[in-house]
Amino acid sequence: MVEFKEMIDLKEEELVIINRLQDLKKGAGTHSPSMFSILESIPEIKIKVDSCFLSNPYATDLFIQYFNKEVLETGLIRDLLEFYPSQNKVIAKKLEDTLKIDSKHIFIGNGAIEIIQALIHNYTKSKIVVNIPTFSSYYEYVKDGIEIVYNKLKKENNYELDVDQYIELCKTEKPDTIVLINPNNPNGAYVKYTGVLRLLESLTFVDNIIVDESFIHFAYEDARLDLVSFYDLIHKYPNLMIIKSMSKDFGIAGIRAGYGIMSEEKVNHLLKNGYLWNSSGLAEYFFSLYVREDFNNKYVEIRKDYIRITQEFITNLKTIKEIKIIPSKANFVLVELPVGIDSSLFASTLLVKYGIYVRDCSDKIGLEGSYLRIASRTKEENEYIVSSLKELFN
Amino acid sequence: MVEFKEMIDLKEEELVIINRLQDLKKGAGTHSPSMFSILESIPEIKIKVDSCFLSNPYATDLFIQYFNKEVLETGLIRDLLEFYPSQNKVIAKKLEDTLKIDSKHIFIGNGAIEIIQALIHNYTKSKIVVNIPTFSSYYEYVKDGIEIVYNKLKKENNYELDVDQYIELCKTEKPDTIVLINPNNPNGAYVKYTGVLRLLESLTFVDNIIVDESFIHFAYEDARLDLVSFYDLIHKYPNLMIIKSMSKDFGIAGIRAGYGIMSEEKVNHLLKNGYLWNSSGLAEYFFSLYVREDFNNKYVEIRKDYIRITQEFITNLKTIKEIKIIPSKANFVLVELPVGIDSSLFASTLLVKYGIYVRDCSDKIGLEGSYLRIASRTKEENEYIVSSLKELFN
Repeated sequence: MVEFKEMIDLKEEELVIINRLQDLKKGAGTHSPSMFSILESIPEIKIKVDSCFLSNPYATDLFIQYFNKEVLETGLIRDLLEFYPSQNKVIAKKLEDTLKIDSKHIFIGNGAIEIIQALIHNYTKSKIVVNIPTFSSYYEYVKDGIEIVYNKLKKENNYELDVDQYIELCKTEKPDTIVLINPNNPNGAYVKYTGVLRLLESLTFVDNIIVDESFIHFAYEDARLDLVSFYDLIHKYPNLMIIKSMSKDFGIAGIRAGYGIMSEEKVNHLLKNGYLWNSSGLAEYFFSLYVREDFNNKYVEIRKDYIRITQEFITNLKTIKEIKIIPSKANFVLVELPVGIDSSLFASTLLVKYGIYVRDCSDKIGLEGSYLRIASRTKEENEYIVSSLKELFN
Repeated sequence: MVEFKEMIDLKEEELVIINRLQDLKKGAGTHSPSMFSILESIPEIKIKVDSCFLSNPYATDLFIQYFNKEVLETGLIRDLLEFYPSQNKVIAKKLEDTLKIDSKHIFIGNGAIEIIQALIHNYTKSKIVVNIPTFSSYYEYVKDGIEIVYNKLKKENNYELDVDQYIELCKTEKPDTIVLINPNNPNGAYVKYTGVLRLLESLTFVDNIIVDESFIHFAYEDARLDLVSFYDLIHKYPNLMIIKSMSKDFGIAGIRAGYGIMSEEKVNHLLKNGYLWNSSGLAEYFFSLYVREDFNNKYVEIRKDYIRITQEFITNLKTIKEIKIIPSKANFVLVELPVGIDSSLFASTLLVKYGIYVRDCSDKIGLEGSYLRIASRTKEENEYIVSSLKELFN
């Protein structure tokens, strides 16, 4: 570490800020502090690119266009702030046609995180299998007394899931809950439709199969880049529970919107236990846009453009010989740093010297080595990230 | 009922709409359908006054002033929509000075309803005492197998809580949880600080004493109309849990913001089990305003003005001899209709003929008779409600 600090020639004041940053991060637990928290605590920092943040900025632009025209210019904003939004099942009903699934299978969440919590708390009773590395909430929310089996994804396999090995593990362990983030966070590996189908076919004895599709809009199975939907599987496999965040693909994390697709019985049970008014006025407005054809047609193009930009970003990152890029079908990449470089210090340095905020993965269990997770942002921001990394390594 | 229908001479098309309205209400369960749901399902209806909705419209005006200037004109709106808000405890920390309570006692909720659910689900293990009439979630959220003891508030006592009788009941029943909504919903009766103190002093053996202060900003104990804070009691009575909605007093129900004041142990336990990112960007902005002196100074005046408007409204309602007004220190009144008038039909008639949406209380358990709950709105809207009721009775 001393080597790295000397190598990049940090100024005294930069080191002070780096230390404060690392304290802030400790206080945020296993999730990164938000950009707002950082700016409030350490106003000296200028964040130019928030590449910790896993969202499609072009989709945000599209949303803002509609929002300006339909909510701000019309004065609808006051109603959305002042009045109670509709109840959970009223909003679910609106999604039926778009999701091509009966609303009795749809549960609306205050962000996907609320649904993760609801499912794990209500349905995981004895044993859960979690692939690692993963999104930490999946093991953090598990109640005391429940066994957690970690399925360690192999570094030599680029942290991709070996479906057959996974099925065997579940047959041996007999968990009541398993979790598949697809594509996975933080590495971006994607299990194709046929793989998920094979898994469901083999694991009918598992009560709860959670498939978290928060990043599915960034994945594709062929050159047409079409979105792959897994929703029809719910009819054949009632143990399947799909969780969908809207924050990433639609670039609206501040609104808090998500939904789950699951058995009618589970939806009813959750609604009986709360979650009645868990959407805000803005979330309800977002969902009303989400189901509109005009909005969707524009979004579909933006989604594909962003995937192409992300592909180009990854190609460019690969030209930096000091780092290793783990293959990803999400809108981020896991980047392995050279041996001896501390990822926390490297991330802080990137932030302080270049204003680039990336996710230091030193707290992620299951990773072997020193890693950053870098999100694809706009084309220009991605280029700035690549050139800054190149400069830092020179 | 036939009598009433003939009496007010409803047109055929009005009757059709009334029937559709009553179907919609059935679908919404024990909570009223939102104004949006009504307008979407029955667009023929013109809502002029939403007096089902329990909020201070002048506070909404104040919020909108700040929001326009600080969020819309500055472009901050995009950040609030795009980025993740801060975590629960980061927002709690911001409230410390304003609430005069250490943030370790503060839990931020996605509306008060989320906190009601969290407390009842996590801490009610055997028996709960609920005063009726009440806000239905307090008994609906109780898990199967837990005994609910209903303390029926007496009609002859205007549904006010008899503190001594209540203490005796709790000593006999030995519940682990009791709930006091103060002022109560739907009747508005208020238990003074000394009464709450007596109750806490006598019920130290009850594990969870939930005091729901969602309407406390509309209450007062003397002619100065000052807000009474119960927060200091948390230090002496660790079994006390205060729930605070921001929807009503600040007129921002669409944002979903609330907080709970409780023991450090309970806050930590809840945060360990989720609720990490349960605020939206707008909720975080609201809380940042809530703690500002300039905003608060203006709000304090608006709060008192609105209380005076509400007092005037109640005085005027009392001049209608056909109805009985139950004494209230909230921003609504429970109104008893003459014998033989069905409250559901009466409420639908008010909506269809005058565009006034009030809360039919026919589904509220614990009320003896036919009741509406009518919220105080703006001075002009209140006057319209009074004159419409007078016309309907003539």
